[in-house]
Amino acid sequence: MFGKIRDYVPVLVWGRHYNRAALSNDLIAALIVTIMLIPQSLAYAMLAGLPPEAGIYASIVPILLYAVFGTSRALAVGPVAVVSLMTAAAVGEVAQQGTAGYALAALTLAGLSGAILLAMGVFRLGFLANFLSHPVIAGFITASGILIAASQLKHILGIPASGHTLTQIVVSLVSHLGEVNVVTLLVGAGATGFLFWVRRGLKPLLVRLGVPAGAAVIATRAGPVAAVVATTAITWGLGLEDYGVAVVGAVPQSLPPFTVPSLSPDLVGALFVPAVLISVIGFVESISVAQTLAAKKRQRIDPDQELIGLGAANIGAAFTGGYPVTGGFARSVVNYDAGAETPAAGAFTAAGLAIAAVALTPLVYFLPNATLAGTIIVAVLSLVDFSILRKTWAYSPSDFYAVTATILLTLLFGVEVGVSAGVMLSIALHLYKTSRPHVAEVGCVPQTEHFRNINRHRVETDPSLVTLRVDESLYFVNARFLDDYLQDRLARDDGKIRNVVLMCSAINAIDYSALETLEAINHRLKELGIGFHLSEVKGPVMDRLKTAHFLDELNGKVFLSQYDAWRTLTGRPARSAAE
Amino acid sequence: MFGKIRDYVPVLVWGRHYNRAALSNDLIAALIVTIMLIPQSLAYAMLAGLPPEAGIYASIVPILLYAVFGTSRALAVGPVAVVSLMTAAAVGEVAQQGTAGYALAALTLAGLSGAILLAMGVFRLGFLANFLSHPVIAGFITASGILIAASQLKHILGIPASGHTLTQIVVSLVSHLGEVNVVTLLVGAGATGFLFWVRRGLKPLLVRLGVPAGAAVIATRAGPVAAVVATTAITWGLGLEDYGVAVVGAVPQSLPPFTVPSLSPDLVGALFVPAVLISVIGFVESISVAQTLAAKKRQRIDPDQELIGLGAANIGAAFTGGYPVTGGFARSVVNYDAGAETPAAGAFTAAGLAIAAVALTPLVYFLPNATLAGTIIVAVLSLVDFSILRKTWAYSPSDFYAVTATILLTLLFGVEVGVSAGVMLSIALHLYKTSRPHVAEVGCVPQTEHFRNINRHRVETDPSLVTLRVDESLYFVNARFLDDYLQDRLARDDGKIRNVVLMCSAINAIDYSALETLEAINHRLKELGIGFHLSEVKGPVMDRLKTAHFLDELNGKVFLSQYDAWRTLTGRPARSAAE
Repeated sequence: MFGKIRDYVPVLVWGRHYNRAALSNDLIAALIVTIMLIPQSLAYAMLAGLPPEAGIYASIVPILLYAVFGTSRALAVGPVAVVSLMTAAAVGEVAQQGTAGYALAALTLAGLSGAILLAMGVFRLGFLANFLSHPVIAGFITASGILIAASQLKHILGIPASGHTLTQIVVSLVSHLGEVNVVTLLVGAGATGFLFWVRRGLKPLLVRLGVPAGAAVIATRAGPVAAVVATTAITWGLGLEDYGVAVVGAVPQSLPPFTVPSLSPDLVGALFVPAVLISVIGFVESISVAQTLAAKKRQRIDPDQELIGLGAANIGAAFTGGYPVTGGFARSVVNYDAGAETPAAGAFTAAGLAIAAVALTPLVYFLPNATLAGTIIVAVLSLVDFSILRKTWAYSPSDFYAVTATILLTLLFGVEVGVSAGVMLSIALHLYKTSRPHVAEVGCVPQTEHFRNINRHRVETDPSLVTLRVDESLYFVNARFLDDYLQDRLARDDGKIRNVVLMCSAINAIDYSALETLEAINHRLKELGIGFHLSEVKGPVMDRLKTAHFLDELNGKVFLSQYDAWRTLTGRPARSAAE
Repeated sequence: MFGKIRDYVPVLVWGRHYNRAALSNDLIAALIVTIMLIPQSLAYAMLAGLPPEAGIYASIVPILLYAVFGTSRALAVGPVAVVSLMTAAAVGEVAQQGTAGYALAALTLAGLSGAILLAMGVFRLGFLANFLSHPVIAGFITASGILIAASQLKHILGIPASGHTLTQIVVSLVSHLGEVNVVTLLVGAGATGFLFWVRRGLKPLLVRLGVPAGAAVIATRAGPVAAVVATTAITWGLGLEDYGVAVVGAVPQSLPPFTVPSLSPDLVGALFVPAVLISVIGFVESISVAQTLAAKKRQRIDPDQELIGLGAANIGAAFTGGYPVTGGFARSVVNYDAGAETPAAGAFTAAGLAIAAVALTPLVYFLPNATLAGTIIVAVLSLVDFSILRKTWAYSPSDFYAVTATILLTLLFGVEVGVSAGVMLSIALHLYKTSRPHVAEVGCVPQTEHFRNINRHRVETDPSLVTLRVDESLYFVNARFLDDYLQDRLARDDGKIRNVVLMCSAINAIDYSALETLEAINHRLKELGIGFHLSEVKGPVMDRLKTAHFLDELNGKVFLSQYDAWRTLTGRPARSAAE
């Protein structure tokens, strides 16, 4: 019983070996991450359409809960760009931004997402994330990055704009282009340009100046903090608010409040599908980061336990004024690079953010929204990478179609349509390929017991024997295909065929529909006086066939190897003296 | 150009060889089928919720169009039970039974279904029907048969009842049970009992009396006609209409009218999904019948041309007062048994039904609805067959789950939900299975060049070499699985492993996600100083891999056969003196 609890609460394992060295490393990492997270949390809350404090609240209790239930030692949980965008899209459908209903819907979305993640973890459904292929994820991240960057341009330009698709956003921006606030544009463009330079040019410069590489990386990550401090100071000092520069304004000085998500069936029903998508996308993003970091230290991540950790974190967000969270790439990498050893680093980060929420929020009053938009734009544009199009085009057309559809549909119809269509299209293309399997007629490679395609290799054949190797499991989608193929092959026969062998080395399963097809083929060949044999049937397939009557009625034999079948049916002598 | 037209209009092929013997056979078959079709058409129209003449109209022009465009020589196209039920369910959602809107919606459904079938034929999408597995079809037919029989009980009992699910129908029947009309019940139960006896007992009796078997079968098929004639005469003679026995009543004496389906976007939108389902289900039913009959005469059916034939038939139904049609089992088998040689038999049947529509409709005025209900019940209960549950349970649990879900969901939520869920569940179960493929560690079967599972066969192995045979194509759904499996295997190693071989005989495709996984595995093994090799890579997979950089970076070789890999990597001598 106690062992079972420990399986679900990893803190009970690593907590027992915690020591002073780990404590000191974790404390330093937490300090660095806390400083980085303050502007990031405010920015993502703005992206999600929520008041700035929601981003900080969403980073406190969720981090603590993940530290208790999660398996990754370096993952930092909180608001991330893509999930914030998806939250804005989902909540925007059911409530008006800035209303109490909007915040309540965001809490409810986090609660639902948490419940879905927990349920997936308990029922060990982590494998469902595999249905998102790598190219679909890459395409989705790229398209989301473009959408997010576009959605933030309004803050840089100081104009109103709205929309959840690229077309809507662009039309909305263009229609307000006459209202651009030049002062805001100067602040925003300045901050954005500075941040791009920090990302591209600062690290090489520091390294040339003799700063150690590790410290240079952390300094680079602190770029947003510098931009925040500088533009806040300028806005305050020059009174830019009077020139129409939008600022964060008053943020309540408070620990995360206790909040209760809505249980209204209408709201839950409207948010359910978005919550599923947010859960799956968030899980995939988080697990990718966690596995990347774990591989560096040869640690293992348990995907099903990760679901429980993320589920608990989201439930926590729902009850403490937050919104959906997941493991983020940037914050986790900083945490890792800064030397975090255990999830305790996350707990210390949470404490740091709690102090900030109580003590530091008055300092961000004059922080321009344009600066936050700049930090978002620079962060997400680094995720945009169209090389996946070139790579998949060269290797696999069906992957190329899936990724192209994902990118276009995400841009034109929003994140939910894009990612759903990408998943469904990849499944449909996979099924389509398996519906028309590759069939090779094979012959014996001379001087060996190996059999290969007669059209690709110089092989021996025998006119009385047709051996077909079907390169696919036989199941309902392709069950009729084999029947049609064999009928066409026999129609080209001039009466010499005495035996047909189905070489089953690539047949990994035979379902009930395919069994019926094999029975029909056996029946038809029997009427024609042709033997029907199987060779190289795999163990699990053979076990299954033995439960049916097929083998009793088979008008032929089952051979262990294709070479056995070839020798027996053509009457050739064994090639080896040893036998 | 002319050759192309002939491809789409098979009548141009068989029409050129038509002679007097075929004409006489076709005429006799047409007469028998016409007599059988009159009550059947009336009954199915009632099942679809349409006036009786709609069933006859739906049997005339569609048959003619199928005779021109279809490829089956024996298929008889017209109203069938399952499609009539689906029509009632779909049209009942958008219009009130008995109104002009109801009939218009039925025409529109036929037109839409025809357009969908034609489009599928032109784009050669006949393979989509393969997504309905045999067990799902069997379960759907069984559940539909029960639903249909239940829906007809109200006519036998002489009470009102409604609903498209078993629960709705039963509740509705029970709530009206106090209003049963005893006279109707006597007529209905008598007709139904007689028809059951005809189906079970008449043929053996006739054969014992010396009637040839073929004639006995046709006499059995004429049972419904006898029931119709007898109950009509009784109802007229005894004036049963005055006792509350519902009768067919006045049917217009007319050739099929020219009608125009609606193009209203609302109606078309509401009927589109049902039309897709009706098209696919109708196509599957029709092609099954056509292939069964064609196989008996060693003829071939072209599925894509069948789509065009059925599409034309449904378009015809839409413009001549009908409703969705397809190739029916009962009518086609009678047509075949009666000796039909060419589609001309269908044309003669159409002529016979046209005469009936003009001249015979007054004769059915006193035909009780209860008799028609009896003919439907007896026909559909013969389709109910639960043995598929037992068969799939024994052979394949996932097929069993799919068929069970199809039956239960069809009964509880109606035909559209049932069949859609069946298809989706079979696909999901298939994908689930491929997400956790069977992996065998293999060794060399002594005295051969054949490699088998070390856990199932007595084989030679070498501690420095691990050979894994993955029994599944590698694609996004299982891409991570192989990586996890290999990491677990290496974790159990005691430092002896020098080489890992991936035996690819069962890997029929490697998609982009899986390629990335192989690259990751190659990278990790290289760091551990372990070679990574492939063997028995199929031609199409090899072609694909050559376009990627993977083979350049591979820390090992690609071997033609596993035996080559085994000899090279373990340094064993060749077993054959010939080499």
